[in-house]
Amino acid sequence: MKTWDIAIVGGGGAGLTAAMYGARGRRHVVVFERKLTGGQIATTDLVENFPGFPRGVNGFDLGQSMLAQAEKFGATVIYEGVDSLEREPSGMFRLRVGEEEHRARTVIVTAGAEYRHLDVPGEEALTGRGVSYCATCDAAFFKDMDVAVVGGGDAAMDEGMFLTRYAKSVTVIHRRDSLRASKMLQERAFSNPKMHFVWDTVVEAIEGESAVTGARLRNVKTGVESRIAVAAVFVFIGHMPNNELLNGLVEVDDDGQVLVDLRMRTTTPGLFVAGDVRTQAARQLISACGDGATAAIAAERYLQDLDGGAGELPAVVPSINAAV
Amino acid sequence: MKTWDIAIVGGGGAGLTAAMYGARGRRHVVVFERKLTGGQIATTDLVENFPGFPRGVNGFDLGQSMLAQAEKFGATVIYEGVDSLEREPSGMFRLRVGEEEHRARTVIVTAGAEYRHLDVPGEEALTGRGVSYCATCDAAFFKDMDVAVVGGGDAAMDEGMFLTRYAKSVTVIHRRDSLRASKMLQERAFSNPKMHFVWDTVVEAIEGESAVTGARLRNVKTGVESRIAVAAVFVFIGHMPNNELLNGLVEVDDDGQVLVDLRMRTTTPGLFVAGDVRTQAARQLISACGDGATAAIAAERYLQDLDGGAGELPAVVPSINAAV
Repeated sequence: MKTWDIAIVGGGGAGLTAAMYGARGRRHVVVFERKLTGGQIATTDLVENFPGFPRGVNGFDLGQSMLAQAEKFGATVIYEGVDSLEREPSGMFRLRVGEEEHRARTVIVTAGAEYRHLDVPGEEALTGRGVSYCATCDAAFFKDMDVAVVGGGDAAMDEGMFLTRYAKSVTVIHRRDSLRASKMLQERAFSNPKMHFVWDTVVEAIEGESAVTGARLRNVKTGVESRIAVAAVFVFIGHMPNNELLNGLVEVDDDGQVLVDLRMRTTTPGLFVAGDVRTQAARQLISACGDGATAAIAAERYLQDLDGGAGELPAVVPSINAAV
Repeated sequence: MKTWDIAIVGGGGAGLTAAMYGARGRRHVVVFERKLTGGQIATTDLVENFPGFPRGVNGFDLGQSMLAQAEKFGATVIYEGVDSLEREPSGMFRLRVGEEEHRARTVIVTAGAEYRHLDVPGEEALTGRGVSYCATCDAAFFKDMDVAVVGGGDAAMDEGMFLTRYAKSVTVIHRRDSLRASKMLQERAFSNPKMHFVWDTVVEAIEGESAVTGARLRNVKTGVESRIAVAAVFVFIGHMPNNELLNGLVEVDDDGQVLVDLRMRTTTPGLFVAGDVRTQAARQLISACGDGATAAIAAERYLQDLDGGAGELPAVVPSINAAV
């Protein structure tokens, strides 16, 4: 059975950056990725907001570059999912990967989060081509265009209002006749002249060939169907961190996001997280990569302490809590 | 007098990434930089550990790319230092910049930190060519070579031991006859067969034409001069965050590094920091850039609250403290 210094669960930007840093520290590093390395960006045509690429960069290519860089320094990538994670009383971690078992002295979980999907025709095919789950990422592509937002919670209002900084109009499509969003956000949204609301309505399909051209809608009370012409459909109906593996191992916040300190340490020694799976993530590629480096450096420090035979972790300066 | 939505102090990776994000949010963004945009990497020949560049990238070029990207989205860069920063009771910030005064609704300080220098001949000219202040960044360049470390504190021992993962030998040059480092780190360093110690000795000069070839030493007790042949001199004699501007405005840790939460908020509303100036920074370009994006997103949220007329900040999930 193989024992790794650092096992990384997830091969997106956070995981690959952590792998590069771990491998540059000459540690035995493995990355487990169930699907495609690169994570959420792997299916993004143009990433405009990763610093260092002023003309933008194709998401798949950027993911492959990060993969090449991690492998160049000696990280191993295994294209399989991790089915379970346990921590022995000795502190050693055991990862079940299909029929195999791997041991690891430290684990960094960068499994990301899933945006809830509408699961309607056109959604998957047009993701990155007008279907989006992140206004911060994609608003700039829809300057002076009409766009739709699906959802009625805080995120839908927050991101919808961000979209008004670019879009000509933002039409909120919501399945009920009132919003779940906080009163304050509702008032702000209702008073924004660019925001429009379509109540009691669901999206039946997203239309377009190479890019979104509109959406087919259905009123859930009357059954009447309609069509809205928009260049983008932003979906904000929920967001779930991929934290199943960490059940019982770490503390999480109310949304299931893993609690961390400023060094990406969880409440379990030797276990780190990075990227969208953690609490208060900025949900951007660059911040996920930053987290990955931070987590790998914290893991290296932890390994140095194990190597040195010291049972004790180094003293740490307390971070302030979010009291501001 | 100009009023900015976001004023950023410092044009390194953290500042330029924050500027790009702020400008992509269509905010009026200014970056003040006293010297050269790009920050610490601007003088680095080859940056190997910034994800997305598997063959490495010249530090100056990378800084210029980040600058171009921030400007492309509309950020303004002013090549002057900020002399003072004040916060009015209204919450508006005032920045004195030479003879001018600027107003800003939010401020992100990314002023970095300074590594204390030896201030000996050869040090500045050979920085990035064998003279380094960061083992995590540069250890990989000195595989199977002899290198020197200057200093006797925790950082010197920590980074020295990290260097032994690559270097053939690591010679610690220390001006006293004992270390300041913690007992635990000392024991570990003394028991590492690759670590050697030269006591009561200072570096007089660093030698080399295009790259470091050695250092001239002097024993402070005997006055005897000597020379050591090394490919690199790693200097760990202190590290100071550039926090002068923030005096009295924020809380700092014992090392003067600014306390932040996981969203890069300081203890002062509307004032954010990112990168090496903050507590527990990983001191890597990628993590500084990640911080910059995080800070800009937090600033955007703060601005949305100001725009909405709400006096209140959104509720935040508490981060855990460093109790692990």
